[in-house]
Amino acid sequence: MSDPSFAPRPTLEDIAARAGVSRATASRVVNGSEGVRAPLAERVRQAVDELGYVPNQAARALVTRRNDAIAVVVAEPETRFFADPFFAQQVRGISRELTAHDNQLVLLLTEGAADYQRVGRYLAGGHVDGALIFSLHDDDTLPALARRAGVPTVIGGRPAWSDSETLYVDCDNRGGARDAVHHLLGLGRRRIGHIAGPLDQTASVDRLDGFRDVLPDADPELIVMGDFTPDGGARAMAQLLDHCPDVDGVFAASDVMASGALRLLRQRGLRVPEDVAVVGFDDIVSVAEWTDPPLTTIRQDIEEMGRMMARLLLRRIDPPEAGAALAPSTGAVLAGSEDASVPLSPIVTRTKLVVRASA
Amino acid sequence: MSDPSFAPRPTLEDIAARAGVSRATASRVVNGSEGVRAPLAERVRQAVDELGYVPNQAARALVTRRNDAIAVVVAEPETRFFADPFFAQQVRGISRELTAHDNQLVLLLTEGAADYQRVGRYLAGGHVDGALIFSLHDDDTLPALARRAGVPTVIGGRPAWSDSETLYVDCDNRGGARDAVHHLLGLGRRRIGHIAGPLDQTASVDRLDGFRDVLPDADPELIVMGDFTPDGGARAMAQLLDHCPDVDGVFAASDVMASGALRLLRQRGLRVPEDVAVVGFDDIVSVAEWTDPPLTTIRQDIEEMGRMMARLLLRRIDPPEAGAALAPSTGAVLAGSEDASVPLSPIVTRTKLVVRASA
Repeated sequence: MSDPSFAPRPTLEDIAARAGVSRATASRVVNGSEGVRAPLAERVRQAVDELGYVPNQAARALVTRRNDAIAVVVAEPETRFFADPFFAQQVRGISRELTAHDNQLVLLLTEGAADYQRVGRYLAGGHVDGALIFSLHDDDTLPALARRAGVPTVIGGRPAWSDSETLYVDCDNRGGARDAVHHLLGLGRRRIGHIAGPLDQTASVDRLDGFRDVLPDADPELIVMGDFTPDGGARAMAQLLDHCPDVDGVFAASDVMASGALRLLRQRGLRVPEDVAVVGFDDIVSVAEWTDPPLTTIRQDIEEMGRMMARLLLRRIDPPEAGAALAPSTGAVLAGSEDASVPLSPIVTRTKLVVRASA
Repeated sequence: MSDPSFAPRPTLEDIAARAGVSRATASRVVNGSEGVRAPLAERVRQAVDELGYVPNQAARALVTRRNDAIAVVVAEPETRFFADPFFAQQVRGISRELTAHDNQLVLLLTEGAADYQRVGRYLAGGHVDGALIFSLHDDDTLPALARRAGVPTVIGGRPAWSDSETLYVDCDNRGGARDAVHHLLGLGRRRIGHIAGPLDQTASVDRLDGFRDVLPDADPELIVMGDFTPDGGARAMAQLLDHCPDVDGVFAASDVMASGALRLLRQRGLRVPEDVAVVGFDDIVSVAEWTDPPLTTIRQDIEEMGRMMARLLLRRIDPPEAGAALAPSTGAVLAGSEDASVPLSPIVTRTKLVVRASA
């Protein structure tokens, strides 16, 4: 590779000279205006490619007030962000959708909540046109910071507060949880436990509520707390077995926790599903298909939900451009409304039971 | 959680009023100027905390010309970025160092090289003060785009070109590879193969060169190509066994490829290390310690190299502030110079053989 370090940055004048057109014509093409004859426009685009011209974005942003960039902020330390495959799958959907609209995905990583003021400063700095925020905990200040920064926002997961303005994308956590418990009951299980996620997150609360919808009189000792990690799932499973040795079915609030529960059951010499049937939640392929035995779970389309978050945000920022594309592109279904042309509103997708070998 | 959506954004005037000081005093404290008495400054800081004040960064940036934000660009599609634990480990080091200097890590993800023009526009838009770029391939245009954008840059890994200006952080790939092969020779292995990485990356070329330094007359069929993925490592191992069934030692240019090679050897009924001894490269803990058998490997301190990249870049951007902290904070050692106060220059760290069970 030749050394690129000393190439001067080409100007609009260089483009015009190379293409043999006026500066005004080059400018119109570069800025996407109409009314330049096709052969001329083609010559300008070729010159842009050959010279590697980068428009002065700062100047352009002054006119369009758009950076064509969207921040993604995950309310978790980067260690957890990289350790949990849920986040990679959600970011994948966001990345595909933003790329399809030629918007840059700007992932703002933190070491923890102590860094949120800095994230707020970046959001307030005019560097992005909007923000996607997910994995909120009850006391998170991120939405307030984004609001103060004046940045349009879409939340991943139902927020703990409710108002008519906040846009979010979630799955039907409560209905999915009910399906999980009904599946275990259908297998003839009668002592069904629940490994809950952290209850400062609405997804955990909703899944626990779904469990209680079906089993309102469940022994309180059958409900144990996990933390969305494999080790937390194993610890919760141990606690469940210690207090309720006759447990014959478990609904874990995430696949990752279910994988830890499966490990603990194996260590205790218990067979899955013969002795204890296990159902997870999420259907994260790299987890659910690779556990031993493969995991029966409640599927939410995480990648598609990422795409929906991105679409909803682009539509809020810039209604005419992105509005047509809000309908889900794959199997996910809108609950509440089947009509994608409705006004901007939260989206709740259906979940689906996926039966593998663990229950 | 109460609804944070409708909180008005506090102004500097609000801070001054709450603290009972003049606007000028509040401004001096917020902007970090000296000369405000400690009790007053404390009252202003308390008001900032209570009201959740975010300084107008755009206005501040006009004065300081700093965003306190550093871009990280990985020259791989986001799918590979999330699949390879190497990247998470490098980003971890970068994140810790940037956080220690209160700089925001801005990770710019792409679907592939087709998105680099957009990354170039973001870099040119004045949103970051510098860029860390890694996993470069020979034909990558990212360094040129960063240069044209006028953004100071540090490269992760030796770039394919050489000049006196480019800063990079790398490990001694060639020396590490020599250590790997010497270790296999010391175990009495006489038919040693090499699973190389993609040769459009300097790390792969340097590791192959190290292999050839020790075994200049190696049978060409003992050198096979991988792609830094587990499946690529398995395919390369199959090819090696098909062409050289008497191979008794393998040096794989990454732990991830070595893990694939171990899997293939097990499928073929060969014992590790009895039949074939295997040495990897990287020492990625989540890989090398969890393979069966655990992997003997060449350790590079990936997280520390991430920290060094961040430090080097902050020093280039802002010499007086970040210059003192360039010495490595953990075990890594500077090759070439032991003195951290030398002028800005590339850093090459030593590697270290870590013996586990596979060789």
